[in-house]
Amino acid sequence: MSELHTDSDSPENNWVNPLRDPHDKRLPRIAGPSGMVIFGVTGDLARRKLLPAVYDLANRGLLPAGFTLIGYGRREWNKEEFENYVLEAVHAGARTKFRDHVWERLAEGMHFVRGNFDDDAAFDTLADTLAEMNATRGTGGNWAYYLSVPPDYFADVCHQLQRSGLAESRDDAWRRVIIEKPFGHDQSSAKKLNEIVNAVFPEKSVFRIDHYLGKETVQNIMALRFANQLFDPMWSAHYVDHVQITMAEDIGLGGRAGYYDGIGAARDVIQNHLIQLLALVAMEEPVSFSPTELQAEKIKVLRATKPVYPLAKTTARGQYTAGWQGSTWVPGLRDEEGFDPKSTTETFAACTLEISSRRWAGVPFYLRTGKRLGRRVTEIALVFKEAPHQPFAEGMTSAMGNNAVVIRVQPDEGVLMRFGSKVPGSTMEVRDVNMDFSYSEAFTEESPEAYERLILDALLDESSLFPTNEEVELSWEILDPVLNYWEEHGLPDEYAAGTWGPESAEKMVERTGRHWRRP
Amino acid sequence: MSELHTDSDSPENNWVNPLRDPHDKRLPRIAGPSGMVIFGVTGDLARRKLLPAVYDLANRGLLPAGFTLIGYGRREWNKEEFENYVLEAVHAGARTKFRDHVWERLAEGMHFVRGNFDDDAAFDTLADTLAEMNATRGTGGNWAYYLSVPPDYFADVCHQLQRSGLAESRDDAWRRVIIEKPFGHDQSSAKKLNEIVNAVFPEKSVFRIDHYLGKETVQNIMALRFANQLFDPMWSAHYVDHVQITMAEDIGLGGRAGYYDGIGAARDVIQNHLIQLLALVAMEEPVSFSPTELQAEKIKVLRATKPVYPLAKTTARGQYTAGWQGSTWVPGLRDEEGFDPKSTTETFAACTLEISSRRWAGVPFYLRTGKRLGRRVTEIALVFKEAPHQPFAEGMTSAMGNNAVVIRVQPDEGVLMRFGSKVPGSTMEVRDVNMDFSYSEAFTEESPEAYERLILDALLDESSLFPTNEEVELSWEILDPVLNYWEEHGLPDEYAAGTWGPESAEKMVERTGRHWRRP
Repeated sequence: MSELHTDSDSPENNWVNPLRDPHDKRLPRIAGPSGMVIFGVTGDLARRKLLPAVYDLANRGLLPAGFTLIGYGRREWNKEEFENYVLEAVHAGARTKFRDHVWERLAEGMHFVRGNFDDDAAFDTLADTLAEMNATRGTGGNWAYYLSVPPDYFADVCHQLQRSGLAESRDDAWRRVIIEKPFGHDQSSAKKLNEIVNAVFPEKSVFRIDHYLGKETVQNIMALRFANQLFDPMWSAHYVDHVQITMAEDIGLGGRAGYYDGIGAARDVIQNHLIQLLALVAMEEPVSFSPTELQAEKIKVLRATKPVYPLAKTTARGQYTAGWQGSTWVPGLRDEEGFDPKSTTETFAACTLEISSRRWAGVPFYLRTGKRLGRRVTEIALVFKEAPHQPFAEGMTSAMGNNAVVIRVQPDEGVLMRFGSKVPGSTMEVRDVNMDFSYSEAFTEESPEAYERLILDALLDESSLFPTNEEVELSWEILDPVLNYWEEHGLPDEYAAGTWGPESAEKMVERTGRHWRRP
Repeated sequence: MSELHTDSDSPENNWVNPLRDPHDKRLPRIAGPSGMVIFGVTGDLARRKLLPAVYDLANRGLLPAGFTLIGYGRREWNKEEFENYVLEAVHAGARTKFRDHVWERLAEGMHFVRGNFDDDAAFDTLADTLAEMNATRGTGGNWAYYLSVPPDYFADVCHQLQRSGLAESRDDAWRRVIIEKPFGHDQSSAKKLNEIVNAVFPEKSVFRIDHYLGKETVQNIMALRFANQLFDPMWSAHYVDHVQITMAEDIGLGGRAGYYDGIGAARDVIQNHLIQLLALVAMEEPVSFSPTELQAEKIKVLRATKPVYPLAKTTARGQYTAGWQGSTWVPGLRDEEGFDPKSTTETFAACTLEISSRRWAGVPFYLRTGKRLGRRVTEIALVFKEAPHQPFAEGMTSAMGNNAVVIRVQPDEGVLMRFGSKVPGSTMEVRDVNMDFSYSEAFTEESPEAYERLILDALLDESSLFPTNEEVELSWEILDPVLNYWEEHGLPDEYAAGTWGPESAEKMVERTGRHWRRP
């Protein structure tokens, strides 16, 4: 282990003290003997996120000494060429400082296996390679398979892993599969996909990545709600008027237009990220944060969640047209390369959900996401009711909006409270002010990347932050009626790039006298 | 009025627009025809606070055109000498820019009357002067008498005002008296003092100054609590563990030792300022902020407030000894000029109060004040109970203290919330962070001085911010048992200058497992 210790001038803050107290749970746990196979290692996700995350974990001393990384793909690469590819990805994307000895140790354990996803021979080679690694590097037969491939290939890869005897866990050796969205495009296809995966891997060995759940501020929702006494009394329909969950992107589709066609904003973002955020904000307190307890609470709240009807008025969707994004004139969706001009795929989606529970009945949850919006921001805003009585003279509180607690997920992670405060002067005029907490100002610790956190959790069998098959299917159950309604109603509305979506999105909240925040 | 309009480059923010809407209550009201007589005009308070405040009000256009200021005192001054004295005080103490035309207009209406406080002839002269002013300057017979004199003289001044026919209001002309603390030194003396004043002026014409109530952040307590929905649900014994009200001064007695002897910290600060803060924090919502409604709620909560017993354990008092105040070695109380070394007068006082009401039963209110403490600060801290259940692994929340909402009254006025937030990293460790709102950052409007606000209110007959005779007597009723107990128990404890008071003050809260904040 000693090679993994950081230099004394290292900026890493999770330096592993050799004298560390193994019972101090505030220190991150180190993964036990294991290795990881990345299918689709030449893809965008692997290069930009997964490989840098593996290096960062190694650099922080959180991977086992003999950690072994196997790339699987169609390139004709030898070990050295694969190493060079990984090295480039690490230099381009790693969060922590590059250190030769960490890299060298990690590179020793790298191998590349060439093949298609339905290639018996290649999977036999893979099986031989893993067996060799178990024998020479002490990986102990513990393997995580990262399926960084389109879902159409899940069946092939799972079948091959099973056929070559690589899928089955034994008492002394675990096998886990990590998969990425999209988890189907509706409830029925999600069920089929889960069946394919679960036919080979039992649910407890399946780790579905929703990288939003690896974000610090998303986990902080649980800390805020359940470590404190302060937020609890206000967290219910007694005081909350409605909740707004926004994920806005400023970028357009660009080269991804072909991939995106047929998916759209609701499937791409609402079904996974936004409904997961809703579950964390709305769920009851779990007995503990163990996977079972946490997932049980999320499932409970998802079961109680439904769209508000009529969908013609409670949902909105749009496609961006050309417009000013800041000071740049950007093209509309139909001018993006590869986008089918007849496509009804939406780049903006908004819907209204309600939760049938004692805590939330009557509180609309407004979810929206879109591309080419005013700015890049993800936030959850609890907007409060007005005070039932204002003992102030007429006009004194007219400049006040509703109180709000806003959890900013990105960028500039933090929490904000908006409330009325007296304006200095001789009268009792009240105006809105903000009280702010910024994550980056409050902590010197750097936030690990979501993928770092989630890969380590998968190696540690810590599944709290991974949605289960049931959660995924329930999310589709919530969204399907909206998707079906849209399917039957032609083209989405238009909105100019750089705005906050189509007019129908404004009307959707304004019909009940409410307004979207301009985050 | 046109002379009073400000220059276009003026920094004053309450510029009075000649086209102002008389019904817009957000604009400060302008006092009607009136004048003010200041008794004790040569004293410290008049020079440092009252005269600059009168100028600032004139500069903001809030005094009537013919406003007339009469100084009464023992100096042999003519009008010009008095004007020069006021001018000097304005230059030294005014908050707003000096402008010749404002000053000239104000100076025209200045006069000085020479005399003692029991001098028939001098008061006859005063009466003649006021009559002349009513005739020539349009003061309309409306006069405020500011008694900036020791309470021993109240009887004389009130008697003389009555004798010379100056005290009685008529239907078309009001007469009001403004008085300053100390309002007695216990309940019985306070009652006597109120009787003396009320024998001449009906209670509705008496304006008792507690300059703390003129502070913006103190009035903001009401805005925070009653304009918002956010704070209400947490504001009770269900969630609040205890409340700390602190007014700490870093200065020592210096030349005031003689005056202070026999008064002490509890009478000087707790009886008025801190108990008023307690009332504003703890009271129920008034129907409106009209004087009657607001005072009724304050009186209700004061009636329910009592010391917690046994006083030997629930109170603490101290006298400062020499010590390091920051980087300066400062003398102890007994070395201050004029202080009687046998005096038992405390320079630090702390006590525990409780409120017998549904909202607050069981919540201790800890009040403390002292001279030569660690730093100058006044704050109200609501400290919350711990969350009843922590779904976190052992040790994860051990670095967390209790949640708190802190209203900072001075300096750096604002509101702060303290709560636990997730520490960035792979574990669910929670640590305390602060969320902050600063008055000076949030508003471009400058805060008027407390005396500006209160003098204007008295001229406007707006008595919400002035404690009534009943409030004063109730405050003493709360404090008297503590004072009597101390009276019978010899010398206060010692504490070194620059610390936060005697050890007994720490023990007073630690015996129940709590701790003072270090503000």
